[in-house]
Amino acid sequence: MAVELKLPLLAVTIATAALAQSPGTSAFVSRSQPGALATQSVSGQFDYETRYFQQKIDHFGFAEDATFNQRYLMADKYWNHNGGPILFYTGNEGDITWFCNNTGFMWEISKELEAMLVFAEHRYYGESMPFGDKSFSNLKNLNYFTSEQALADFAVLIRNLKQTIHGAQTSPVIAIGGSYGGMLAAWFRMKYPNIIVGALAASAPIWLFENLTACGDFNTIVTNDFLKSGKGCSESIRNSWDAINKLSSTAEGLNFLSHALHLCSPLQASDVASFKSWLSNTWVNLAMVDYPYAADFLQPLPAWPIKVVCSFLKDPSLPAKSLMQNIFQALNVYFNYTGNAQCLNISQTATSNLDDQGWYYQTCTEMVMPSCSDGVKDMFEPVPWNLQQYSDNCKKDWGLRPRPDWITTVYGGEKISSHSNIVFSNGGLDPWASGGVTKSISDTLIAIIIPEGAHHLDLRSRNDKDPISVQKARALEVEYIKKWIQEARNESMPYTTCFA
Amino acid sequence: MAVELKLPLLAVTIATAALAQSPGTSAFVSRSQPGALATQSVSGQFDYETRYFQQKIDHFGFAEDATFNQRYLMADKYWNHNGGPILFYTGNEGDITWFCNNTGFMWEISKELEAMLVFAEHRYYGESMPFGDKSFSNLKNLNYFTSEQALADFAVLIRNLKQTIHGAQTSPVIAIGGSYGGMLAAWFRMKYPNIIVGALAASAPIWLFENLTACGDFNTIVTNDFLKSGKGCSESIRNSWDAINKLSSTAEGLNFLSHALHLCSPLQASDVASFKSWLSNTWVNLAMVDYPYAADFLQPLPAWPIKVVCSFLKDPSLPAKSLMQNIFQALNVYFNYTGNAQCLNISQTATSNLDDQGWYYQTCTEMVMPSCSDGVKDMFEPVPWNLQQYSDNCKKDWGLRPRPDWITTVYGGEKISSHSNIVFSNGGLDPWASGGVTKSISDTLIAIIIPEGAHHLDLRSRNDKDPISVQKARALEVEYIKKWIQEARNESMPYTTCFA
Repeated sequence: MAVELKLPLLAVTIATAALAQSPGTSAFVSRSQPGALATQSVSGQFDYETRYFQQKIDHFGFAEDATFNQRYLMADKYWNHNGGPILFYTGNEGDITWFCNNTGFMWEISKELEAMLVFAEHRYYGESMPFGDKSFSNLKNLNYFTSEQALADFAVLIRNLKQTIHGAQTSPVIAIGGSYGGMLAAWFRMKYPNIIVGALAASAPIWLFENLTACGDFNTIVTNDFLKSGKGCSESIRNSWDAINKLSSTAEGLNFLSHALHLCSPLQASDVASFKSWLSNTWVNLAMVDYPYAADFLQPLPAWPIKVVCSFLKDPSLPAKSLMQNIFQALNVYFNYTGNAQCLNISQTATSNLDDQGWYYQTCTEMVMPSCSDGVKDMFEPVPWNLQQYSDNCKKDWGLRPRPDWITTVYGGEKISSHSNIVFSNGGLDPWASGGVTKSISDTLIAIIIPEGAHHLDLRSRNDKDPISVQKARALEVEYIKKWIQEARNESMPYTTCFA
Repeated sequence: MAVELKLPLLAVTIATAALAQSPGTSAFVSRSQPGALATQSVSGQFDYETRYFQQKIDHFGFAEDATFNQRYLMADKYWNHNGGPILFYTGNEGDITWFCNNTGFMWEISKELEAMLVFAEHRYYGESMPFGDKSFSNLKNLNYFTSEQALADFAVLIRNLKQTIHGAQTSPVIAIGGSYGGMLAAWFRMKYPNIIVGALAASAPIWLFENLTACGDFNTIVTNDFLKSGKGCSESIRNSWDAINKLSSTAEGLNFLSHALHLCSPLQASDVASFKSWLSNTWVNLAMVDYPYAADFLQPLPAWPIKVVCSFLKDPSLPAKSLMQNIFQALNVYFNYTGNAQCLNISQTATSNLDDQGWYYQTCTEMVMPSCSDGVKDMFEPVPWNLQQYSDNCKKDWGLRPRPDWITTVYGGEKISSHSNIVFSNGGLDPWASGGVTKSISDTLIAIIIPEGAHHLDLRSRNDKDPISVQKARALEVEYIKKWIQEARNESMPYTTCFA
């Protein structure tokens, strides 16, 4: 199988799910441009004010002294103006309004905590473009697109908010984030404990780097989700690859696949690798959003969507054509739950609120998360981890090579025990839990497992169908947040001990 | 008084001690060029091997992918090749061989600890020039000259050493540094607790930023050193400014000063500000090196040099000319203890092993340490802290402006209580103690005061004339280092607790 590792720069193609991991999605769409939301006040599902902060383009050098407008959203309806806490969402790889509207947990606890909410957009995403529409034009402009710069943005923004908002000077700040945003929340606490008193890192695969996690674990979790969701289901998908290989070897078979799967464009022999990647990405995305109620995160979907998908994939022993007709029914759940899709587009798998071009750049620089599949422990075609090929593709597409050992150097790898006040929550169904912190490390570095949870279910709004485990997780998270706030208030008293 | 704040780029002039603070020195000499020491093995007072590591020029961006040779010195005579600890000197603003030869403490404890010694040179100093002799040519080449890049160098180097040296894989690493190097040691532990298990930060003024310390405290300590070292001493210096102002207002007076002080070049009216800065710097330097025994750190000096200086400054009520003749006698102690000086050069105050051009760049970017004098609590002419003027001078000399609130943002300012395993040692005579951590913050963030100590006396070799306080301090420091090593060895066992 010819593997295309990554989305080439400024073009839309397909990557294998097994090799192109983005905690937020595996979808591949072109970068969303700054939208029409650049107004000072936006009213949506949640009521917030849109603001902009003049942020340094480069925090780590002095030759580039220019600034850009970083977008952030603010809501202070329930805020105690006398030092009430600030819950700070560490924005990740997409439009911040989308994360804001998908993090109901923060809105729901803001009243009890008398907290201000701030959602800060990550540079190079959404409207927060350091060089406007030239931000992705060349390596020089892209040079400030790192997690370190993003964390520095957050730190500088918070200092400014505390200095300029009356009553916020002593406000304890808690970072909250999911997925890559969860990694940022955890790293933010590790690197800037002076700025935030604690962090909730939801579904944050901080250990999916270098050799900290076996490269196949991610796909094993995806497979187990399908295995548990219906008899014959994961086996049907495992068998589909041979069916595709067989059918795509003839013109008639390609024609059959195009029609049976209602593809928007006829499948060419040269598209087959991309086609299989698109399928893999779809199964991975389903594992991420296997929520217990109908939701619209990456796509509009029914409750427990994998169960619905699996209801069409009961017989793995069917001949190739029948198997692929069932695969279509399964795909239709994901791509056409609303019934509006005219055809299936193999160049798209998920929401355009996530910016895959930006994330692809990050995976080609800092965010190298080794991934592989073996077709035995998982239901995918065997694809070994191949760093050289990965790096060569980055070189081809971006003109640079990733530094796979940098993240573990700068953010500590497995050696994080000296840090404090971080809750790592993980969903038992979420493939990203493979690289998550799933065991507590100390009494201030806490792991929470939500066995029935998919990707950061705990950050979503309450729902009647929420399993008990996520309700308990949220309660525990609030408890820790309160504890950190209390500690911070006690600590602002002068030191009483002197050991000197 | 016309104040020149800083050493202009590529030229040698004088700055006021009150406004241009360098923890290592206040001397102003041109940047030392890569010397003839680039051999693989150097034998000096201490026996070490000189090595070079291929270091990334930019750890925080991907557009610049080139590397440079970072110099480091290594000694493993006493090292236990089965995981013995590594004592790692975090090099500061100068040639690393000089720091190596002035940090006898590390050499002396290496046997007891069975430790390897590594002295790593700071980028843009000594031989470790990212762009060779073009490193200071323009802002683009200077752009990677930050403390963050230097810490990343240290982290990457240590990872490499542990990967490549047989027996070092599990070696606990302890950072040790003095002055700016002490700040780096402390910040290194804060930012990379995965890389080092603890840090000894000797005479590290990490709180001499923003408004964490009153700007006059530094000069008050200098003054007190002279006040306590002889009757009439600080008062003589305080009165010298008026004497200089009076004498320098006439050609005859200038002529008198030139001869009385044996200046190498006749004093011009336009030099008077520089002349006074040179005097101020000299008094400051004396305070830094007021060691209890004859030593050659910034200059060859007798034991307790301020006492010797003060023996010439007993009568502050003398008329201007007599007072200045005494001032010459005092200066002669500092500049001509060896008796070899033909004249006094007001463009030099200290060792050329420290690189003032490099440090000036750092003070114009990250290292903004507010300083002032009032002539009342201190013996200097009143000079208020003036950030605007400071910044304007940086703009003029380097084409950039400093960011005075960055260091406290990125390294925590006073909010460092969540960190661990740092010993901050401070000398009671050392003006840099004004911005040091002089009270313990927790049972793992320890402050040690050495009342009779000048600038990082504890890092120097043992001496028969060492006061008890520094002997005790060194013993305590070794105790903490042993504790950190022990803790690290215990921690490498698998986690046994699971709170999930």
